[in-house]
This record gives sequence, structure tokens and C-alpha cells, in this order.
Amino acid sequence: MSRFWSDHVAGLVPYTPGEQPRVADLLKLNTNENPYGPSPQALKAMKEAVDGRLRLYPDPEAAALREAIAAYHGLASAQVFVGNGSDEVLAHVFHGLFLRGGRPLLMPDITYSFYPTYCRLYGIPCETVALRDDFALDPQDYVGGQGAAGIIFANPNAPTGMALGLDAVAGICRANPDTVVVVDEAYVDFGAESAVALLPRHGNLLVVHTLSKSRSLAGLRVGYAMGSADLIEGLRRIKDSFNSYPLDMLAQAGALAAIQDKAYFDKTRQAIMRSRDQLAVDLAQMGFDVLPSMANFVFARHRSSDAVKLAAALRERHILVRHFALPRIDQYLRITIGTDADCARLCAALAEILRKAQ
Amino acid sequence: MSRFWSDHVAGLVPYTPGEQPRVADLLKLNTNENPYGPSPQALKAMKEAVDGRLRLYPDPEAAALREAIAAYHGLASAQVFVGNGSDEVLAHVFHGLFLRGGRPLLMPDITYSFYPTYCRLYGIPCETVALRDDFALDPQDYVGGQGAAGIIFANPNAPTGMALGLDAVAGICRANPDTVVVVDEAYVDFGAESAVALLPRHGNLLVVHTLSKSRSLAGLRVGYAMGSADLIEGLRRIKDSFNSYPLDMLAQAGALAAIQDKAYFDKTRQAIMRSRDQLAVDLAQMGFDVLPSMANFVFARHRSSDAVKLAAALRERHILVRHFALPRIDQYLRITIGTDADCARLCAALAEILRKAQ
Repeated sequence: MSRFWSDHVAGLVPYTPGEQPRVADLLKLNTNENPYGPSPQALKAMKEAVDGRLRLYPDPEAAALREAIAAYHGLASAQVFVGNGSDEVLAHVFHGLFLRGGRPLLMPDITYSFYPTYCRLYGIPCETVALRDDFALDPQDYVGGQGAAGIIFANPNAPTGMALGLDAVAGICRANPDTVVVVDEAYVDFGAESAVALLPRHGNLLVVHTLSKSRSLAGLRVGYAMGSADLIEGLRRIKDSFNSYPLDMLAQAGALAAIQDKAYFDKTRQAIMRSRDQLAVDLAQMGFDVLPSMANFVFARHRSSDAVKLAAALRERHILVRHFALPRIDQYLRITIGTDADCARLCAALAEILRKAQ
Repeated sequence: MSRFWSDHVAGLVPYTPGEQPRVADLLKLNTNENPYGPSPQALKAMKEAVDGRLRLYPDPEAAALREAIAAYHGLASAQVFVGNGSDEVLAHVFHGLFLRGGRPLLMPDITYSFYPTYCRLYGIPCETVALRDDFALDPQDYVGGQGAAGIIFANPNAPTGMALGLDAVAGICRANPDTVVVVDEAYVDFGAESAVALLPRHGNLLVVHTLSKSRSLAGLRVGYAMGSADLIEGLRRIKDSFNSYPLDMLAQAGALAAIQDKAYFDKTRQAIMRSRDQLAVDLAQMGFDVLPSMANFVFARHRSSDAVKLAAALRERHILVRHFALPRIDQYLRITIGTDADCARLCAALAEILRKAQ
């Protein structure tokens, strides 16, 4: 605590991102990065954008990128808001849409752990709604949430990977017509249904995407939100009171090319889905309970080996996975889907660890 | 106003950045961009960073970049905070250091117009202190500011370009030992003295720099703050509650190389200072009063021609300059220093406009 800090700073509990060590032969399966790398078209566009034009400010509206995103999703560009990673987009959502005179924000008890951090940053009361015992989200639990400042959940959920169907999402929007419902679809491209299809019928719905996972551009920091022009205008007002130019020229160029290269996107996400489904089978055969995943990771618990010990033993073998020391999920490991070779190396290591533990 | 916005959103007055039209033969002298373009070393570093590693998250701490900035300024890296442009850095300063239980923030009445916007975003009362009639900042006006949440001013000031000496800055820090004093030095590399030299003696001082002006990287969005480790930790806590990864990999690589290429930096900033001093003479000969500038722009008023009409006539000739429709300065134009050829084109256009007006 410093006498120079704002009143709320000492009480913040900053988000802890997954580790980013740079070690040779390290297999990073801890932050849901994509093993295939960005679209070659995106790399080409970024290389071409590195020149003397960087002396100029970038387009503060990122008009060309927003146009491309809108075209991809069949929306108008006034329905698209872009930011410096979906984390920044979410921060503006909390500040611009969820700060409602002390009313609580509803979210699942198990979900992206940055949400409670945003609540503390902006002083928004946070009300968690327990997932069912099988980690499914029950839409009935969000009926009658009309006094809330908003509702937010990830779909597929993190770190479970489990997806909710569109009917259930629509039901939550319909049951709370005066409340903003935010669906964080960071992982939607690995097999789940996107709520973008619901936007025409639900003016209270906002859908958030990122280019960090399915477009393999975590290093570039681009995310976006889609919703009614009314919701997007609220975000734009926050952004233009915070930083007029959140996306640099290279990020705008790379993101645009990545969105337009649908062939590469489809090829790589399908490869990840195939590897995921095979890994789930392989883990089950080694004695893991694996939650049904629609994401680029699996969330799994071994029936007889302790999660913390397993993670430590994998780390000794230069394989990182993510463990959350949180109630209900502290015996699970979240394991990112790599290439088939990555999955094989993981399985070999796990088999060896489990053999020694017997 | 939307029923879905947070309570404070309707009352925001977003900052209006200078225009960024993309028109052939346009001479942009309206947003203080650098005519010389980034260091060739920075361009090379960015090109080399465009590869498959972009699939990974960037270093959330930007350790290598912060180390390079610290080395350049003779500081420890714990004294350096980096962000997505100095606008983002400033936003975190307002949120993390100036939100002090309703106490007012002191700033000059004429200064960077984003400061009042941040105040509205975070609900900080803003108390302006009038510059003297000659637009000089009088340090005596900040004596007795101990009840304030903080003090902020730009040095050199924007849009006047006038610089305050280090003794005056030190006096303000000394007179307000329990108040954070932020000196925004976006333009300091064009001839003014940096308050970084005062950091060892003033724990309440924070100095903010940008790579958009003297490093000619407006398109890349990198800024930084320097101060005691204590102040920097306050900013870090805000950042890690907002967005763990504000600087993408390409921005980190380009900024690091730009900071290290001191030869190019010195060559280009000296060229701009020479052009500025010549332009000031040329404008005076055409009947302008030109404020003494230590920035990469001049702020000038014609003794008989109206500023709005002059700006419009320049625009007809595809030359953009910046006009602020604000009290006390609405007869001034802020003109960015370009190359000598840019300055010559500007002067020829002004000479023609003034001749026709006679």
C-alpha cells in the first residue's frame, strides 16, 4: 500500500496469466495457444505493413478491420467493436455496461477468472451462480435476474470447455430482456454454436470473440465484441475516453488478413478438434475423467493421482499444463490441445508418471 | 442514451483525435507526427518478429523493453511502466493515482485536452489553473495544492509548445510532497529538459513519455511512465486488473530497437528542431506571432487573419493544421514541423492565402 495510490488500488487482486517462460524444448499446454501459428496471409500482411507509414497514427476506428469482421459474421460494421485483445474489450464492457449503481453482476462460480478481477477494478458487486455438479450451466438459474447489472458467462466455458446450446443462450436473453447478457466466445470456433446467430432477435446480447485462439494470434492482441449498434456505441464512448488508438497498424493489418483467410482457419481448427477428440480418448484410457470439451483444451481429473503432483511431474519433463487452486476444480488439469506430436509427447509423459506412481 | 449503458456513459465527452484522412498529396501537419519515419533498426526488428511465434502470448511484463528504457534513462526497470501508447498509460495514471476520494486534480486551463476526458471517465473532479497571459505556467500557482488528488501538466505544454525549466518543476514537486505530480513529456525530446533527472529526489514525481513523436512510431502505440517503484507498482496493479498483455510482440520488438538506435533518434530530432526554428522565423516574417516552442510543432496566431479562415484555406490546398475552438486560443493554429520541403510548401501556401486576403 502506498500513500500515492488511488483508494481502490490496494484492494485489487490482479489477474494471474499463465506462465510464459522461454525455455528450449518446452511444451506449453498451459495458456491455450494454437500450435499451428497464424495464417500465412496474416504474416504477409504484417510484413508489408512494416514501413515508414508507422510514423502516422493508425485508424482510430479500425474501419477496414471492423468491416471485414462484420462481413465475416454477416453484420453491419456499426455492430462491431474492436480492442487490444478480448481482455481489453471485456474491461470496457464491465466499465461501460455493467457499472449500474451498485447492482450485482451475475456469473457462474466456475468461469474465466478475469471476470471477478474486473468487478473489483470498477467496484461492481459480483454474484456467482453455482454450476451444476456436472459443471453444466443451467439456464433456469438465470431466470429472474432482472435486478442484475448484467449477466456474463463464457461459452464454451473456461476452464471446463463445456458448451451451452443456442436455445439455452436465447432463453437467458429472453428471460432478462432489460439486462445485458454477455457471451464470451473465446473458444467458440472449436465446435460450439455461436450466439451471433441470436443477435437479430436480442438487443440485450453482446458476443465477444478473440483472435488469440482459433486465429493463432495471441501475440498480436486483437479481440472484438458484436451486438446492437446501441451496445457498441456504449463501448465506443468508453474507448474514446480511454485511448483513441487501441490497435496499432500492424495489428489491424494482420487481424484483417487473418479474418479473411477462411481456408487456413478451417483447416487448423479442424485439426485441433480431431486432436482434441483423440486426446480425450487417450486420457480416458489412462484413468482420467475428461469433461466433454468444445474448446482447444480439455479439462481432466485423474481417478487416483493428485492433480498438483501430476502437474509438477509434467513440469519436470518440461511440459506445462494449467492448474487452478480453486474450490470444486482443484483436482483438474486444463490441458491445451497441441499438434498430434504434442499430444503424443504429453501422453507418453503421463503414462510414465502414472506407471511410476503405482 | 441507452438503457443498457452504465450510469456514467451518457455523460462522457470522448476525446477527439486529429483527423487521419488518407488522401494523396495531403500534407498532414495536424497531429504532430514525425516526418522522418521510424528507425531502420526498428523496422528491421519488427519484420523479424513477424513469424510463427505470434501464436504465443507476448511477455506480459515487456521485460526486455522495460530494461532497454531503464538503461536509456539510467533507471531501474522497476521504475518503468509501459503501455499501449502514452494515452493508455495516462488513463491508468488517472485511475490508479488520481482517484482520491473526490479530491480535485489540478491542471493548467490550456493543456492536453485528453486530461479532462479522463477525469470524466473516472469521476475525478478537475480543477483548472489559468496559465499566465503569455501562456507561461507559473509554479507559484501550484503552491498549496496539498488538498489535491494530484497535479498534471504537459512539458513542453500542448498545444503551446512552451517549456518549463527543471527548477520550476522541482519547485512544484517540493511544494506538494504528498501529492503525485505527473509531467507529460510527450514532446520533451525536441529541446526541453526532462524531469527524469529529478526522480532520485522526488518520490511523488511521475514522468510520461511516448514513442509516437520523437521516435516516429505513432502507428505502433507505445508509451511509458517513469517514477519510484512505488508509483509504478500502483500502475502495474491497475494494468494487471485491466489487460495483462497491453503490448503485442511486434510493438515490444519495434519499441526496443527504436530506443536503442540513439544515432537515428538524435539525427532526426535535430533536423526537426532546425526546421522548427526556421519555420518560426518564416512565420514571423509573414505576420504571425509564434510562441517559443520546444516541441515538434509551433503554435501561432496571425496578427490580422482569422485562424479558422486560415485553416480552411490551407485545407483547400490539402494542408491540414490543427485548430482548437477553445477560450483564449481560438485565434491560434498548431502546426506540426515536417521536413524542410513540407515547411516550404506550408509557407508558400500561407503567403498565397495572405496575399489574396489583402
